[in-house]
Amino acid sequence: MLEILSIEQKSEKLNQILHRTVLPTGQIEKRVEEILSDVKENGDGAIRKYSFLFDEVNLETFEVSEEEISQALNEINEELMEALLAAKENIERYHEKQLQTGYKIENEISSIQQIINPIERVGIYIPGGKAAYPSTVLMNAIPAKIAGVNEIVIVTPPNKEGKIKSSILVAAKLAGVSKVLKIGGAHAIGALAYGTETIQRVDKIVGPGNLYVALAKKNVSGIVGIDMVAGPTEVVILADEHANERFIAADLMAQAEHDEMASSIVITTSNELAEKIQQASHDLIEEQPRKEIIQKAFENYGAIIKVNSIEEGLNLVNKIAPEHVEILLKDSEEYVTKIKNAGAIFVGDYTPEPVGDYYAGTNHTLPTSGTARFTSPLSVNDFQKKTSVVYYSKEALKAARNYIETIANEEGLFGHKKAISIRFEEE
Amino acid sequence: MLEILSIEQKSEKLNQILHRTVLPTGQIEKRVEEILSDVKENGDGAIRKYSFLFDEVNLETFEVSEEEISQALNEINEELMEALLAAKENIERYHEKQLQTGYKIENEISSIQQIINPIERVGIYIPGGKAAYPSTVLMNAIPAKIAGVNEIVIVTPPNKEGKIKSSILVAAKLAGVSKVLKIGGAHAIGALAYGTETIQRVDKIVGPGNLYVALAKKNVSGIVGIDMVAGPTEVVILADEHANERFIAADLMAQAEHDEMASSIVITTSNELAEKIQQASHDLIEEQPRKEIIQKAFENYGAIIKVNSIEEGLNLVNKIAPEHVEILLKDSEEYVTKIKNAGAIFVGDYTPEPVGDYYAGTNHTLPTSGTARFTSPLSVNDFQKKTSVVYYSKEALKAARNYIETIANEEGLFGHKKAISIRFEEE
Repeated sequence: MLEILSIEQKSEKLNQILHRTVLPTGQIEKRVEEILSDVKENGDGAIRKYSFLFDEVNLETFEVSEEEISQALNEINEELMEALLAAKENIERYHEKQLQTGYKIENEISSIQQIINPIERVGIYIPGGKAAYPSTVLMNAIPAKIAGVNEIVIVTPPNKEGKIKSSILVAAKLAGVSKVLKIGGAHAIGALAYGTETIQRVDKIVGPGNLYVALAKKNVSGIVGIDMVAGPTEVVILADEHANERFIAADLMAQAEHDEMASSIVITTSNELAEKIQQASHDLIEEQPRKEIIQKAFENYGAIIKVNSIEEGLNLVNKIAPEHVEILLKDSEEYVTKIKNAGAIFVGDYTPEPVGDYYAGTNHTLPTSGTARFTSPLSVNDFQKKTSVVYYSKEALKAARNYIETIANEEGLFGHKKAISIRFEEE
Repeated sequence: MLEILSIEQKSEKLNQILHRTVLPTGQIEKRVEEILSDVKENGDGAIRKYSFLFDEVNLETFEVSEEEISQALNEINEELMEALLAAKENIERYHEKQLQTGYKIENEISSIQQIINPIERVGIYIPGGKAAYPSTVLMNAIPAKIAGVNEIVIVTPPNKEGKIKSSILVAAKLAGVSKVLKIGGAHAIGALAYGTETIQRVDKIVGPGNLYVALAKKNVSGIVGIDMVAGPTEVVILADEHANERFIAADLMAQAEHDEMASSIVITTSNELAEKIQQASHDLIEEQPRKEIIQKAFENYGAIIKVNSIEEGLNLVNKIAPEHVEILLKDSEEYVTKIKNAGAIFVGDYTPEPVGDYYAGTNHTLPTSGTARFTSPLSVNDFQKKTSVVYYSKEALKAARNYIETIANEEGLFGHKKAISIRFEEE
């Protein structure tokens, strides 16, 4: 049962919700380190070993064949294909606007410029088993493709027959992925970061994964780029008396079904609504196949929080800085600009969060655990990198030299000063 | 003496240059962890303790007073003031172009939107002592200011009299910094990340620092955002027979004087130039006040590398992915677009790297240790964060629902499907 809390009672649970961070255990961290150095040292041999150990498969080659992709395209039903194509189109339309192109400021004797290149090779981690989501393939690969990434490699663990789910392969094909490798877990992250005899190292790794994968990504960060170390998913629903309690209860459960550590929160000014949501979620939970996960998530990080004003509710949202916010207020649109810290905002009664997960076009890779204070949704910009370019003619350097030498002098960097003055010594 | 290497000999040193990563020692990491948890637990008390221990000062309050800033403005000489003002203007001009503004795609029944907000509170670490550089203040604070950051706090260690260098305070004033705190080291990073009784926590920490500071930033990353964990500085100079060996030798020394672990490299097609640079650097080093640092840097990561063609040189540059590249070729500008991995490129005989450190307007906080493969120079974008906004009317959701439910079904997320279908149950 969802607990109803008041913002005035400084309860332990409220405190827990406000300071939500998920800490890794040292034990797993150590194991991940071992796996990574094994892969670094022993390459493909180590990969085969861990694939046998964790996925129970004996792999000769890692790459999914053209044949397997054709087969997947044949197997997939038409309705799903249409849905993936429609989603793809929307994701492309939203993300194309993010492409940055650089700029140049110049006069006759000098110029400064920002040039932008795509990252050359990108690896995407896609979980296997029950959490193998074709939507995740689209959300990670399409922005990389739009950025112009030359090689996009998916790593994903196969089932015991050494096969990858058809919808994953179809989504990869649709998104223009270069190759799919049948490896998962921390060792797959190692393969992407260090390279092996048959796997070329990448420059950046993105995509979700379990704790092993998350810790492996954190470990190799700096050797390669990573997107973010994602925590469990979250929704905060801001609602007043006008809102439909059944809609809200369903949305809370949609978030909670991901993970026992997921957080589903309602913030409301209405006592009546709070009680109605509590009842509705109690009624609706029975039909949920993932009932047990939902119940645990509700216990861990679920709550209905009573506030005295919408203002107070907005402050609380900005403090939590959640991954997802739904606004179900009388004039929902008016409150969008009041929310400063959030991954994504869903406005009004008919925009439940799954619209963004699958279809609207915005990215579903979003900052969690309060990191929306300083982190953005995954975007095309995550696959672009910038370089500054400076050109000074002799004349321009001459005009600037006093300024540069003065600052170099103040900073005690004689060599910096000399690099300027030596160019005018013979005059 | 700078060593001349050939790309064909697969020497140990070439290998070292190509796989340059600077690894922290576990011992220091542990000490940093201790300091951080002490600050987290004991707040201002811990800060005072470490300030006494490391900086030998007894601080009552941490904040630099208005009086101290006025005094600094009085003390500073006119020439330096003019130089800082000229630099500020150029930095502003270059960085203003980076401000992103978001976008909206809409039709009559739905909209998707990217909104952009500044990060609310930012902390900037500025080293003390000999490495207290006013240029670093400008380079970190101006982009934050342009992004619209509400509060910009500098932390920097004071001298034994509890004072901060005048030029640092003046640069902070010019750049619009909100306050300067007289604390440095790992404990200052802890104060910014966790907050104390008198210091409000920030959302992101940027700026350079020694190993303690770098490790502290890495440790709190995720609780707050950080810019990058910077390694020692680097320059790669691509030169042919037309280039002036004395210019190059001076530029190599300008980079090397920062740090014994700095890397100064020339890549050239010309045997003659290689020998001339070796001789010129030998001659010029004598007059350098930082001669010993330069010599050690040359030994550790310095080299003149002979290649067979400019093409081969460009490949090597992209492999190294250095912080700074200087192009001193016959037609330097033609090669800019061939360099894919670099923090900043300096074009032609009269653009030595210090032009970018102090004056041209581009940022001097740049990716090191090969991270230019996936990291960009510090920019206004590092102080902005994005939020996606989705609005669907009932009509829009109705049109989309089959697609969304189909994908939810494929992914086995019944709760996601229900969040859609429940909105049409009474029809």
